Amino acid sequence: MIIVTRKGVTPDELDHIRERIESLGLRTHVSEGEERTIVGCVGDESRLHGVPLLSIPGVEAVHEVLKPYKLASREFAAEPSRIALGGVELGGSEIVTIAGPCSVENREMMAQTAAHVAARGARGLRGGAFKPRSSPYSFQGLGEEGLQILADVRAESGLPVVTEVMDTRQVELVASYADVLQVGARNMQNFSLLTEVGRLRRPVLLKRGMAATVKDLLLATEYVMSQGNPNVILCERGIRTFGTATRNTFDLAAIPVLKRETHLPVVADPSHAGGRRHLVAPPSYAAIPAGADGLLVEVHPDPETAASDGEQSLDFAEFDHLMRTLRPFAEAAGRSLGALAEV
Amino acid sequence: MIIVTRKGVTPDELDHIRERIESLGLRTHVSEGEERTIVGCVGDESRLHGVPLLSIPGVEAVHEVLKPYKLASREFAAEPSRIALGGVELGGSEIVTIAGPCSVENREMMAQTAAHVAARGARGLRGGAFKPRSSPYSFQGLGEEGLQILADVRAESGLPVVTEVMDTRQVELVASYADVLQVGARNMQNFSLLTEVGRLRRPVLLKRGMAATVKDLLLATEYVMSQGNPNVILCERGIRTFGTATRNTFDLAAIPVLKRETHLPVVADPSHAGGRRHLVAPPSYAAIPAGADGLLVEVHPDPETAASDGEQSLDFAEFDHLMRTLRPFAEAAGRSLGALAEV
Amino acid sequence: MIIVTRKGVTPDELDHIRERIESLGLRTHVSEGEERTIVGCVGDESRLHGVPLLSIPGVEAVHEVLKPYKLASREFAAEPSRIALGGVELGGSEIVTIAGPCSVENREMMAQTAAHVAARGARGLRGGAFKPRSSPYSFQGLGEEGLQILADVRAESGLPVVTEVMDTRQVELVASYADVLQVGARNMQNFSLLTEVGRLRRPVLLKRGMAATVKDLLLATEYVMSQGNPNVILCERGIRTFGTATRNTFDLAAIPVLKRETHLPVVADPSHAGGRRHLVAPPSYAAIPAGADGLLVEVHPDPETAASDGEQSLDFAEFDHLMRTLRPFAEAAGRSLGALAEV
Amino acid sequence: MIIVTRKGVTPDELDHIRERIESLGLRTHVSEGEERTIVGCVGDESRLHGVPLLSIPGVEAVHEVLKPYKLASREFAAEPSRIALGGVELGGSEIVTIAGPCSVENREMMAQTAAHVAARGARGLRGGAFKPRSSPYSFQGLGEEGLQILADVRAESGLPVVTEVMDTRQVELVASYADVLQVGARNMQNFSLLTEVGRLRRPVLLKRGMAATVKDLLLATEYVMSQGNPNVILCERGIRTFGTATRNTFDLAAIPVLKRETHLPVVADPSHAGGRRHLVAPPSYAAIPAGADGLLVEVHPDPETAASDGEQSLDFAEFDHLMRTLRPFAEAAGRSLGALAEV
Repeated sequence: MIIVTRKGVTPDELDHIRERIESLGLRTHVSEGEERTIVGCVGDESRLHGVPLLSIPGVEAVHEVLKPYKLASREFAAEPSRIALGGVELGGSEIVTIAGPCSVENREMMAQTAAHVAARGARGLRGGAFKPRSSPYSFQGLGEEGLQILADVRAESGLPVVTEVMDTRQVELVASYADVLQVGARNMQNFSLLTEVGRLRRPVLLKRGMAATVKDLLLATEYVMSQGNPNVILCERGIRTFGTATRNTFDLAAIPVLKRETHLPVVADPSHAGGRRHLVAPPSYAAIPAGADGLLVEVHPDPETAASDGEQSLDFAEFDHLMRTLRPFAEAAGRSLGALAEV
Repeated sequence: MIIVTRKGVTPDELDHIRERIESLGLRTHVSEGEERTIVGCVGDESRLHGVPLLSIPGVEAVHEVLKPYKLASREFAAEPSRIALGGVELGGSEIVTIAGPCSVENREMMAQTAAHVAARGARGLRGGAFKPRSSPYSFQGLGEEGLQILADVRAESGLPVVTEVMDTRQVELVASYADVLQVGARNMQNFSLLTEVGRLRRPVLLKRGMAATVKDLLLATEYVMSQGNPNVILCERGIRTFGTATRNTFDLAAIPVLKRETHLPVVADPSHAGGRRHLVAPPSYAAIPAGADGLLVEVHPDPETAASDGEQSLDFAEFDHLMRTLRPFAEAAGRSLGALAEV
Repeated sequence: MIIVTRKGVTPDELDHIRERIESLGLRTHVSEGEERTIVGCVGDESRLHGVPLLSIPGVEAVHEVLKPYKLASREFAAEPSRIALGGVELGGSEIVTIAGPCSVENREMMAQTAAHVAARGARGLRGGAFKPRSSPYSFQGLGEEGLQILADVRAESGLPVVTEVMDTRQVELVASYADVLQVGARNMQNFSLLTEVGRLRRPVLLKRGMAATVKDLLLATEYVMSQGNPNVILCERGIRTFGTATRNTFDLAAIPVLKRETHLPVVADPSHAGGRRHLVAPPSYAAIPAGADGLLVEVHPDPETAASDGEQSLDFAEFDHLMRTLRPFAEAAGRSLGALAEV
Repeated sequence: MIIVTRKGVTPDELDHIRERIESLGLRTHVSEGEERTIVGCVGDESRLHGVPLLSIPGVEAVHEVLKPYKLASREFAAEPSRIALGGVELGGSEIVTIAGPCSVENREMMAQTAAHVAARGARGLRGGAFKPRSSPYSFQGLGEEGLQILADVRAESGLPVVTEVMDTRQVELVASYADVLQVGARNMQNFSLLTEVGRLRRPVLLKRGMAATVKDLLLATEYVMSQGNPNVILCERGIRTFGTATRNTFDLAAIPVLKRETHLPVVADPSHAGGRRHLVAPPSYAAIPAGADGLLVEVHPDPETAASDGEQSLDFAEFDHLMRTLRPFAEAAGRSLGALAEV
């Protein structure tokens, strides 16, 4: 931490600043400039987190030197982490596609979707049993029945299941069915939930919140990891900006920034980013050269009648087209894409 | 709902659009313009929520006619709702000040703060026992011990207690101690939590999320109210924008917009808006002519040593100054402010 | 400037960093932390502006110590600057109201408006002869004819004229008619225009751009002042955020931040902030306790037929009500408001 | 335009709304819903632009039916427009790379850069002679001397010149040297400048403003085109959001949105988007599958000493790497990239 004092800071103020820092177990290093005096804090910077340095008289500005996240950082683990999903690894050389409807609506549509996307190279099945909807009057998901359907369909299709958990009380239940626990954008700073999923070892797919900086996302990750669960998959799904042409603003550059800051796998959710069917493909393609390790794509047998997110769900033909056209970009990036099943 | 079709929409597409709407129990009303055909949907618009109208071939745009929130709206209750807090009412003529530290740190500082702010006209005591901190390495609150301290201090000071609940599993516990349950900005779309606090009749202070529009906030309110709890107090506390001069951007105009859209009381949190002690007073004053019914102010006996939010906490002298200088603005707005105790 | 080096910076890199800084005429001061080495740059920091320090191998982060603006800063002039507008001073004890239509439409409506607002306490007349409209198909203003009308109406009403200049080629022309040259939000970083209005001594009312930070605004101010024109009036008029309930998001806290950072007068434009007639009053009231020195209010004899901005223009009765209800807030803030003429 | 009236609109108000619309030459079409009455406006919607419909008593909301831009729209020209740049066409099958330093610093560095980038497949040379800098104390460009250098280097290298114009008074001068006139992000709504460059037939590269929606950008385009200049190249270069990890937030999805809305060529500026050298490549790659027709890349012989934007300028080796690694993505997208010269 570097403290910049105000112009004309008094010797007493400076002494008090130094005492305060030293009382927290760090050393100080004072440097007199022409117009400002700088106090460098040497030692374990984490002791200063939450300390209201700006409230100390004479302090004008404070700059962090070290990143406030640890376990997620590249300094903690220089090598990329790989997280197994069925037979593949997120963070390995394959671009892993996880596909499926927004909500689990019934067994038939899930079975049909799973069979279809598996045949086209998807490696995971998504689908919500508990749905975070902006309005209480919208469909809220099938609950445990939906989880059961997901598990049944996994048995048939072989696709591991990624599904959302919204409530600390459901963590155990969802974990008893799911392969990956998804924490949605609206719950990215639901710290109780993060702590709870951190107590398991089941992989967690953590979506970036709509107003979250990269630093916020990595601190949320730290909640999960500091409980002992190292298996966090980060997901860029668009942020909220003044733009109105798309549902969210896909922050493409967050992908390389995350890949540089952290050793964890990063996936992109092009469906929520664009919010419209015709806007799903461009961020899907783009995520690959940006460094994404996977894609989370909404697919529905009949988007026009979907119970949720139908406006951004691909139908089967659109998904086929996406997978076919993704392949050359994956190859251009030196990555592979799930092999097509022999149909 | 009004549907705008694309240029050159075919008769078949138009028929299909009408059938789809009518199958949901609404009537349609077609209006041919020079370049676009418009399909008005007449009937219960709520049946169209979540229906992916933009996925229907031939649809170019969709405009909502009715507000998607009901119980919170002015159309539902034309008269302002009043919510009792101890001896006063939020939503009445008095500007209600709720003051106290960010976190409950220990009994002594709470007792001292409560006594002080009560004497200066505060009508409620704030303080967090469960703290949502961006970093897992920051102080997380005293938990139930903090709740017990709050209850004890209420007994001494007479100030009702406003404290945050972060987890569905804690709702009953927190409600057994608190007079008002606060749902923080980061949990504004934690729909499980909203539903749970909606099952009680205890007042809920709901803070606007950092990326939440007014509509999002009112839909979150609807989660609480549709469970049967009509006692929601809304709180503007600043949104996230590109600005860096303040912690958040206080959205002053949201206050009159909310007062027009809803019958519920609205309070402002100037502490989180500004994020710095010297920036607390201006939004406090400003909130009053904008129509706020109350203020939520962070006060600490010694901000420099506060366990959290010390940079935006007023000390006692600053709080005294604020209350003294607030009074003429309250009066200019035709409102009163809590009377000073005889000290 | 403080340079933070990357973990494991080599001695050669460190030498190179120091040489680079010293070659620009500053001294360096190296401080070794446990994980990072810090290089303080002592001397004239302005020599480092625009120098790509982050491009030097081994540099991880750079923090500014001094503000990049000078002439506008409080350090340059501790006392508030006052700028004369007719018989009053912006930056003095009176809250100065400048009122009038968005566009000059014709002589009659201007004369009528000027007479009306002057009688209610306005101290300046606003009205655009050159209009920056988002669409080329919208009314673009009367041009010089509009300026002539403004000058004629000033002669009758005694109100000094504030009008926009959009083009370097018009600066002299507009200055030959206007008392204050307005630079609009869309031109806040039109540096050629800023330079040109800086060559005169005529006061400049500089509106904050929709995506401008406070620092950006003060650097734009610096363009005007560094040409020799010290008479800059800053204007907060709302910024662009994700919010949709208002045209722009009025950044109330920018007012006290500006008053602290700079000695220049600050006015608020509540009309553009809210964008709707019923949203003009709240930010007008609120701006006063926040520290604003004046208000810029759109008033039109018949807003429903206004050639531009009719949706946010007050009619005469609304303006009267605003001025009447503003007075107690001005008094509560220890400020006065233009006296009512004897009508 | 569709007008939604407020609940309980009176017959008189409804009559007045209809009269107002009909007096402007459109027909009205009234549709009674259960809770709201809708008034459709049939006819030339452009007559309603700027008309303050929300100021008419009884009006609650207004929805545009038609896009407010015409000449730029797909409805005006279904086929993609192609704009010649030397021997290639922007908007054709080749991804056109325009490379060069931020500022023209001297003849030698321009000659060296032009020769280098031309040999690696660049098709245009960028470089600023007039520089819009946030601070007046930063390097402002060489002015006409810089233009002369650009013209000389074009003669040697064969690369057409793209350079910025900032002032209406410079348009003719810049056009006498440049092949493409760039209008920067800060001047995107400098309508005088847009009008002036619209009077020529020289291609205009128009950068999206930091707070501009896609609609704002297309309306700015309309200023140029409505003057008679059809040769506009649109440029996505990142917008301003709350994000701090990158200089701007590259809005990838704006590229496919623009390609769908308009027939004009679209290029991406990955340098300003990322703001750091290591963040230039990902948006460059990503722009291609998103549909971009070209790239605008900052390249400098020695970024560490660049007079401006050195932190985001590639050195020659980095540019070589970019061009080499871009090629497979261009091919995957069915596009070509400028051929390498035989060196």
